[in-house]
Amino acid sequence: MTKKIRSNCPVSYALELIGDKWSLLILRDIILREKRFYHEFSASAEGIATNILSNRLAMLESNGFINKQRDTEDRKRYIYSPTEKGLDLLPVIISMMQWSDKYNNETDIRPPFMDMMRNDPIEFEKSIRAKFSG
Amino acid sequence: MTKKIRSNCPVSYALELIGDKWSLLILRDIILREKRFYHEFSASAEGIATNILSNRLAMLESNGFINKQRDTEDRKRYIYSPTEKGLDLLPVIISMMQWSDKYNNETDIRPPFMDMMRNDPIEFEKSIRAKFSG
Repeated sequence: MTKKIRSNCPVSYALELIGDKWSLLILRDIILREKRFYHEFSASAEGIATNILSNRLAMLESNGFINKQRDTEDRKRYIYSPTEKGLDLLPVIISMMQWSDKYNNETDIRPPFMDMMRNDPIEFEKSIRAKFSG
Repeated sequence: MTKKIRSNCPVSYALELIGDKWSLLILRDIILREKRFYHEFSASAEGIATNILSNRLAMLESNGFINKQRDTEDRKRYIYSPTEKGLDLLPVIISMMQWSDKYNNETDIRPPFMDMMRNDPIEFEKSIRAKFSG
């Protein structure tokens, strides 16, 4: 995928790739909720349309945020997993969580994520990364 | 602005507000580049279309990310400034900068921002916030 980069500003660069309402939600599903299959992403509460889901999964894969491998136990389906490049977006995701925790009274963060995120976000990030290492 | 919230996930909440390619760029201009006027945002390298710029400024104001005040020195124009709620998105912006610094060889971060962001992102954030305090 080559396209004209609108500027070399690092904020702009990140937004060109994940500046939409869905890409980081799919990464949230894969990284924080450990979802692995298309039907699991499709079932998330936000109700992503199947055409958008397919489009974003392809984008995330082609830009190296996730890996897609055929499931050896069920050859008809694929397993999605985060790459290091995808996991490195965790600080972006966590800082969004912290911001929403402050500004949205209705924020629902599942235990034990809520306490970990509030008390020790660095440890929180480490514990998530550890699930995908090795 | 009331609209149906798609879920109470904190990642989803933040993305519903600033999950697009432009809102955080305008906040970057206001917060990191200390731009204050419409024509200054319009002049940024990414070439934002005027209709999108107007739309996003109105959204950012109505959702409490920025303030808009008439310029007392030139009553025909407005001065835009960040609110605390807007400044609290700095960790999101900085974590995007760090991610791009790692994954985009062409990333151009102006000195002294580059060194500060790499060596001490917490101090970097503090120094930016200090410009808007009091």
